[in-house]
Formats: sequence, structure tokens, C-alpha cells
Amino acid sequence: MPPDIYDKLMMLAKRRGFIYPSFEIYGGSAGFYDYGPLGSRLKQNIENLWRKYYILKDNCIEISTPTITLFEVLEASGHVEEFTDLTIDCKKCKQSFKVEEIVDDNKEINELIKNNKIKCPYCKSNLKDPYPVNLMFKTKIGIGQGRDAFLRPETAQGIFTDFHLLYRYNREKLPFGVIQIGKGYRNEVSPRQGTIRLREFSMAEAEIFFDPNDKKHQNFNSVKNKELKLFDNKIEKKYTLEEAVNKKIINNQALAYYMFLTNEFLISAGVDKNKFRFRKHAENELAHYAEECWDAELYSDRFGWIECVGIADRSAYDLRSHIERSSTDMHAIRKFDKPKILVKNRIVPNMEKLGPLFKKQAGKIKTLLENMEPKKNEKILVNIDGKKIEVPKNCYDIIEKEEKQTGEKFVPHVIEPSYGIDRILYCILEHNYKEIRKKDEDYRILKLNPIISPIKVGILPLINDDKISKIAKDLDIILRNSGIETYYDEGGSIGRRYARMDEIGTPFCITIDYDSINDGSATIRYRDTTKQDRIKIKDILNLILIKLNHDFI
Amino acid sequence: MPPDIYDKLMMLAKRRGFIYPSFEIYGGSAGFYDYGPLGSRLKQNIENLWRKYYILKDNCIEISTPTITLFEVLEASGHVEEFTDLTIDCKKCKQSFKVEEIVDDNKEINELIKNNKIKCPYCKSNLKDPYPVNLMFKTKIGIGQGRDAFLRPETAQGIFTDFHLLYRYNREKLPFGVIQIGKGYRNEVSPRQGTIRLREFSMAEAEIFFDPNDKKHQNFNSVKNKELKLFDNKIEKKYTLEEAVNKKIINNQALAYYMFLTNEFLISAGVDKNKFRFRKHAENELAHYAEECWDAELYSDRFGWIECVGIADRSAYDLRSHIERSSTDMHAIRKFDKPKILVKNRIVPNMEKLGPLFKKQAGKIKTLLENMEPKKNEKILVNIDGKKIEVPKNCYDIIEKEEKQTGEKFVPHVIEPSYGIDRILYCILEHNYKEIRKKDEDYRILKLNPIISPIKVGILPLINDDKISKIAKDLDIILRNSGIETYYDEGGSIGRRYARMDEIGTPFCITIDYDSINDGSATIRYRDTTKQDRIKIKDILNLILIKLNHDFI
Repeated sequence: MPPDIYDKLMMLAKRRGFIYPSFEIYGGSAGFYDYGPLGSRLKQNIENLWRKYYILKDNCIEISTPTITLFEVLEASGHVEEFTDLTIDCKKCKQSFKVEEIVDDNKEINELIKNNKIKCPYCKSNLKDPYPVNLMFKTKIGIGQGRDAFLRPETAQGIFTDFHLLYRYNREKLPFGVIQIGKGYRNEVSPRQGTIRLREFSMAEAEIFFDPNDKKHQNFNSVKNKELKLFDNKIEKKYTLEEAVNKKIINNQALAYYMFLTNEFLISAGVDKNKFRFRKHAENELAHYAEECWDAELYSDRFGWIECVGIADRSAYDLRSHIERSSTDMHAIRKFDKPKILVKNRIVPNMEKLGPLFKKQAGKIKTLLENMEPKKNEKILVNIDGKKIEVPKNCYDIIEKEEKQTGEKFVPHVIEPSYGIDRILYCILEHNYKEIRKKDEDYRILKLNPIISPIKVGILPLINDDKISKIAKDLDIILRNSGIETYYDEGGSIGRRYARMDEIGTPFCITIDYDSINDGSATIRYRDTTKQDRIKIKDILNLILIKLNHDFI
Repeated sequence: MPPDIYDKLMMLAKRRGFIYPSFEIYGGSAGFYDYGPLGSRLKQNIENLWRKYYILKDNCIEISTPTITLFEVLEASGHVEEFTDLTIDCKKCKQSFKVEEIVDDNKEINELIKNNKIKCPYCKSNLKDPYPVNLMFKTKIGIGQGRDAFLRPETAQGIFTDFHLLYRYNREKLPFGVIQIGKGYRNEVSPRQGTIRLREFSMAEAEIFFDPNDKKHQNFNSVKNKELKLFDNKIEKKYTLEEAVNKKIINNQALAYYMFLTNEFLISAGVDKNKFRFRKHAENELAHYAEECWDAELYSDRFGWIECVGIADRSAYDLRSHIERSSTDMHAIRKFDKPKILVKNRIVPNMEKLGPLFKKQAGKIKTLLENMEPKKNEKILVNIDGKKIEVPKNCYDIIEKEEKQTGEKFVPHVIEPSYGIDRILYCILEHNYKEIRKKDEDYRILKLNPIISPIKVGILPLINDDKISKIAKDLDIILRNSGIETYYDEGGSIGRRYARMDEIGTPFCITIDYDSINDGSATIRYRDTTKQDRIKIKDILNLILIKLNHDFI
């Protein structure tokens, strides 16, 4: 088989310092890749462009929480129970597979296996019964028995468990958004798709907290006529945001707005708009926490449509679970226009009974009781360390109480745009990889958007001469001090040097020559047109800054 | 006990959104902290300032490798064997302690315990025998038996295992430096020092590869007269770099240069120069890979001198281990001025014998043999998958061969400056925390260097008025679009708002008032002097940019 675009791209990526297989000197390990000098810069540029959309345009705040996560957090979030892949092993060759990799529709899998209608894709032998495998990497905190923990499957839980603090930071106003960029982990059963299915990956996630009565977005009106390409698993069709929301194809403004923001980000990052659509999750593929979810899918010649972003309405799922398990008040307050007087049932704890009975826990239980609104004659249960405990009747009285209320508590809803940075990076490379024939050789160009190109400017002294080198090096320092990534290259013919810059996606090259010494000018060459202009060296910094800004906004 | 500066700072840090204890709603876990909206920004600013020193000034390249690391890598690096703490348990209360926490000098620990001369610091009971505990977090890759792996104790190994690729990226020239910023992990026995002793932390590491014959730095001469404060574990004394190298207090130029760069970075990040020194590691405290090591120590009122940066000469230790274990050629080439003709012993493999004997491995063994320079009659051993195998004599011949050599292979040496970002961040907060009395209240100011302040400009519309708000919001957008972090605050008296900005270290505040509507002017207030100037609104962006740049260079 001749190399496809993936093979060609990965060869280029390794040769030029974008992506290396991790631990290769020890035989490597599927699902792990290193970013080399160019890949690491490309990745940072993509993340920083993403920050511009979420911090500058959408006013989100950013936090950073540990990758190691306590068992309790992920039990409450449902990941201990639900974050699994149905897996199947071969009876003979012992290989393991994700069921969804080898059967189209999971439902009848047991039937298929019982009748031996489905065989091992490798050795064609019969398969064992399928079983669920939890996909989190396990570890222990501390020595001896230690404390159970996992590597986080998503950055989101770090945001949810800090919600009450972040709500206070935001002066108790909704909506507001919190982002986190960092590592996520998924112990894939047997990843076989190169850089697309990683066990350790980079995520950029935003959790936008809304009042469930008001899932509007303040910027919606200014973008309601923009179009998105939507795929409902049957047909692909363009809709304006307004149409999609009115027809309930997308359930609310907030969700639609973050799909729009995703669209803008991906296009400005250099995704091919003809290889990009939003696909709605079918009921039976929704994650355990999601009410509705749209994937931004990017098309790859090798892998087909790839899920690169999930934009989910997680409703109150996570915050409600954490409130219940941790007994922490993580509600928001909806203020009334004017205060209301309400008659409520309240509990008056009897500490003389509670104290001896519950000892150390008594104080905590007292607080829990005082915050309840019990019905008469109802059993009173409190949640202590994840266990429900009944409080005996002689430990409290229930009284009716008039209370002035200025607002009411509620659990905020969450819209979550969640981006897989590595997949986006790969698709951007694939969508922008061009091959042409030049002088009977394959000539490769990465037509990256300048805003994300790892190197913005190649600086090429034409001839080995002290004066020319000096001018080139001074220019290099000026550009670098202004935060512009450069590559200084004095080796080989100028054609070879242009070719090297084209191959890594450098949009501008500056050549310094003998004329530069006399008249302070240089040649600027543009990657995409190969056009060359003469320009004053002192104007170069400004020109590049303008080109870079122009390309972003 | 009244709260000390640590208590005060951590209260401020939590209240204002710098640092939160992780998983607090589930009781927390020692050694884990979250960075809130301000802390996360502060940390990124520190890391980006660090990048300026290492990428802009020192021309390093940056890579990014996984946190999960194969057993094989960390076995070769010596961490499986050596990355341990001597630990001791109490016979009665069962608590565990690091021996170095409770005894001054490790050497006589067994003697002390045998004689019950040393007791549990908590319950004063006798202690058991000490034992080493490996400090890496363990996990498994894949299902079933899986593959043993650890969370990396340092980012460095990801750089070492890619050395041959990075050397090629750098066109096979030395010296060159590679940096990595990311998470490191250390499963501390029982961390008791808040944000100083973390189990998951952020590191910024540089590995600078040198020819061992030439550990000079090209910029050394331009800084040789700069002074560093050195502490040899007895006295503190200032030396110029040149003096320190000439007197062999610091062993080579390269090491001295990176101590200087560390000095510059820490001072520009806002460390108090009177609470900063370099301390030389004594022989018996050197890490298993280090030939010489200097710590940059910062002084904390609560914790005393804290190791925040280690600048180590790792010599050829790591590369040599990986070459040996992985049988990968990770040498560099030192070119001769002119080619030499040498007579060498070379092995000619006999594939007819090797093939049947070693089957699949035969090809690999052939390559290894052909690269050897055996002595006559020496046993021939090859390293296959970590095991040494003897190759029988009938599998090869040894011949003498004239070879033209243009250079010779060697294993590069490594100088490693390794920074603990969280500790530096904490010390910067502590060194810049000032408390004064103002109108009979405690008034807190964080005198952060503007370049690292999480918020650069507070934008404060004086009165709730549509025209004033419009002007303030437009300015806000202009500044934010230029990458300047702002905080828009319209709540409370102007004094309260200045106080809030002082407390989070915002260096500049802009107040928009009625005059702004008429004459396009605004008031700028400086945090450190509380001086206020009237300024044209259209000049503000430039003024702030100049102030920020000025403060960096």
C-alpha cells in the first residue's frame, strides 16, 4: 500500500520536529506521543488562540487544578460507575477489543457472540463474553493502603468542585464561564489510531454556568444569522443559529452560541470548512451526564469523521451530585424583585441528645438539620461521608416559622464546550498539507494560518558574510523580542531554505543580501503565493505584526 | 498563636481567588492545591517570563512529553532504585514520617532508634525500623496485567529519551538547550508544609547539552563581573561569576552562567534579593545523577530557607544509562579538524550462525556487533531488552581495519536548571505581601512586579452612568485586545475598589468620571505610590505597554 496522507504527515512530523512517538527507544507505547520543538509551539499557539475566544470574547475566567483526582470526586461524578468501554477478548490470541470497534450496533452483541457470528479481527477465532472496563488510570496517594485516586478523565470536575468559590469570585452573578486547559487521561483498551486516540491528551474545556430559567446568551442576537452545518445522523444541512433554536434542533440559545464560537475558533485556526460539521448525539450515545450534545467533527482522509469538540448541555447533573455527596452548599441564588414572607417547616436540633449520639459528627449534623425544610412526620435523613443516616425523632423538634426571603436557591445548569486539542492539531495539519511536484521532486507545503504557525518568520542571510550576518541577527533579535517566533537559517542554497520553511508552514521569509548593507532593504517572500517583495528592514516588524493581527480578527 | 504571614497570605489567596485547597468539599488531600482565576494567571505569567529567559535570551527549544512514563525509562534513569525517602513509622499511632524531618543527621538513625533515643513527634511512643519508600505514583497502562508505569518525577527524562531526535533537529551542533514546562509528581510520605511540599507540582526544566571538553557558555564573558550570593553550608559570601569559576567554587562556566540566569529571572519575577542565595549541595545530599548541584534558596518567614531551583551538573549520567539500556545510538559527534586514519578492531558477523541462534533478534545483534570496537580475545556481550547476552565465538570474526575518521563519538554532558514553579510563586507572594494600618483597619498590598501581576489594570467607572460606563467598557476592550489583563469593577466606593486592586497586586487603576465625557481624560493611580495623574484616555494603552516593557528589561 502506498503511504496515505497520515503516513506522509507523520513522517514529516517526526523528521521536522512536530510529533515523535513517546518512549520510542524502549519500543514505544500505543496512545502516547511527544510534541517536538515545532509541535509544542503549534500546540501552544492553538491553545492561546482558543483562550482569545473564551477569555477575550466570552469573558471566561481560567483555573488550574490537579490531574490526580480523589476517588470521592469521580464517584460522585459518575465516572467510577459509568466511564467504561464494553470490551471483548479473543479466546485464542487473547487480544482485547472495544466492542464498538468490531460491531456496528452494540445491542445484539451477546446474541452475536453466543452464535459465534462474530470473530476475532486478528486470528478469526471465537470471542469470550463482553465485559465493561473502566477507562481511568488508577493510582494511590500516600504510602501503605493509601487513598484511591485516578488521573482525571476530564478537567471539568476540578471546576465543578470549586463552583462555590468561583461563584463568590464572580460576585454571585450568573451566567459566568470557567475554563481549564490541561491534561486528560483515558486508559484506552487498545488504541490503534495513532495520534487520534491518545491515552494522555490535552483538553481545553469551558464550563458555563447558567440559571436554568434563562439559557440565553447576551451575544446571541448579534450572531443569530450566522450559519452552521448540522448533521442529524441522516442528513447534513445548513441552518442559521436562530432557525436551529426556533425549530428546537438545538435546544437553547446558550448551546447554539457555543457551537457558533466553536465554529469561529476552528475556522480561524485553519480547519477546512468543507471538512467540518456538527453532529448531534443520538439518545443512546449520550454520556451519562449529558442532556444534549453536539460534536464538532473534522474529516480526515485516513480516519473519516473525527469527534474533535463536544458541546454538551450537562444540565444540573454534576453540581447536584457534588452537593448531595459532599453536603456542601453549591447553590446559586435567584433574587426576587421584592422580598417574600413564607411559612416554612424548620428543624430545631436538640444538642443534648444529638451530642452524645453522634459525637464528633454532631456539629455537622446540626448544620445540615437547620438547613432542611422537612415535611411533618417525614423521616429525617442526613448525608455523612457519603452514607445516609437517620436522625432519631427525639433529637429534634419541627416548628413552623415565618421567614422573609429575598431570593431562592437553585442548582445552576452547565453548558460545556470540550475541545480535544491533539485531534484538532492533527486535523489542522492534515487539512493544510499540500504536495506538489517541483523539479521532479515531491515538494511539501504546510499552509498553516500564520496565527498558529510555529515559526512566523524565516530569517535567511543569503551569503556567509559578517555584515550580512550582523544585519540578519539584529533583525532576528528585534522580532523575537516582540514575541514573534523566528528561525535563523544560514545553511544551504536559498531554494533549499525556502523549501524547509514551506515544509514547516512558515508564512514569511526574509532574505538579507548585499543590497541590504547599502540600502537597508531586504526581500520578503510569502509562502502561499511565493511572491517576493523588496521592503525596508526597519518596516519589517510592523508589517509582520499587521499580517498576524489581520489574520486573527 | 496569632496568624503568621503564611496564614494571612493563604486566607487572602483563598478569599481573592489565587489558591484553593483541592477537593476541599471532600475533606481535601495534603499536597494538592488548585490555582483560582488569579493564581492561574499569576502562574502563567511566571512561566512566560521564564520562557523569555530561556527561549529569547538563551535560544532553547521547547518540547512537551507525557506525564505517564514507562517503567523502563525510569528504571534506566535510576528513579526506580533511587527516588526514595527513608521513612519511619510510629509503633503506636502508626503515623509515618520522613526520617530527615525528625533527625538532623541520617547517619546514626539506626543507633538512635535501637536505643529509643528518638520518639514519635506526635504521641512520643517508640518508632519502628526505618525503610526506604519509592516516591513515584504508580499506575498501569492497558487492561489486565497491563504495563507498569509511573507519573514522572521530573520532566527531564522526556527530553533525554528524545535526545537523538533533538540533536538532529539542532543540525547536530552542541551546545543546545531544551526546555519543558509541565507537571511533576512526588508521592510524599506525609506532606505537612502547605503549598511548599506538593504531591503534584509544576516544573520548568532546561536540559543544556554540552561537549564535556567545552563547558563554556558563549555569553559568559558579558556577565562575568556580575555577583552571586553563595552559601557553602558554612558562610554566605558574594562572588563574581569569574571569581567563583576561577576558584573552582563553581566547577565550570556553564553551571555558573545558568546560576546567573536564575538570579536574573528570580529578581525580575519579584523575589526579594535579601531573601535569596545559592547553596551548594554537600557530597552526601547530591541526587543520584548529579556531580555538582546548587540550589537557589528563597527565605520564607514560616518555612525558613526553601529550595526553589536546583542547578545541577548531571554529567553524562542520563544519556549514558539510556544508551546502555535501550541500545539506541544517542551519541554526539566531535569533528576533527582534519580526518584521521585509524586502525581498529572490527567484528564481521557470521549470519549463518547468528540467524538460527538468535532468530528475530539476529538483525539487531548484527548492527550492535558492527558498531563495536572489541579487544582481541575479549568476550562479546550485547544488550538485548535490558539483558546482557554473550555472543558465541563462532558467530563472528574480529579483523583489523583501516578507517578514515572525520570525528569521534561522545556522550554529551548535561547542565540542568530545574525550577519549582509553585514554590517560586508562593515565595513571590510572601516577599511582596505588605500590611499597613489605614483608618484603623488592616490594609493589604501585594507589591507584585507588573510583569507578573495577574491583573495589570483596574478599570473603575466612578459613577453609575451610561456614558461613563460606555467609555470605561471601550477602554477595557482596547486593553484586553492588546493582551493586557484588566478587571472591570463598578461596585462600591472608589476607596473600596482601590483597596481590592491593591490586595490582588494590580499596579495601575484607571478611573473614568464626568470630566472624561467632556475632555477625554481619566485618572491613573499607581499602586506603589498611590500617586494619581490625569491622562488622556487615548494615551493609556501606550503608557501601560511602556510601563510593562520597562519593568521587564
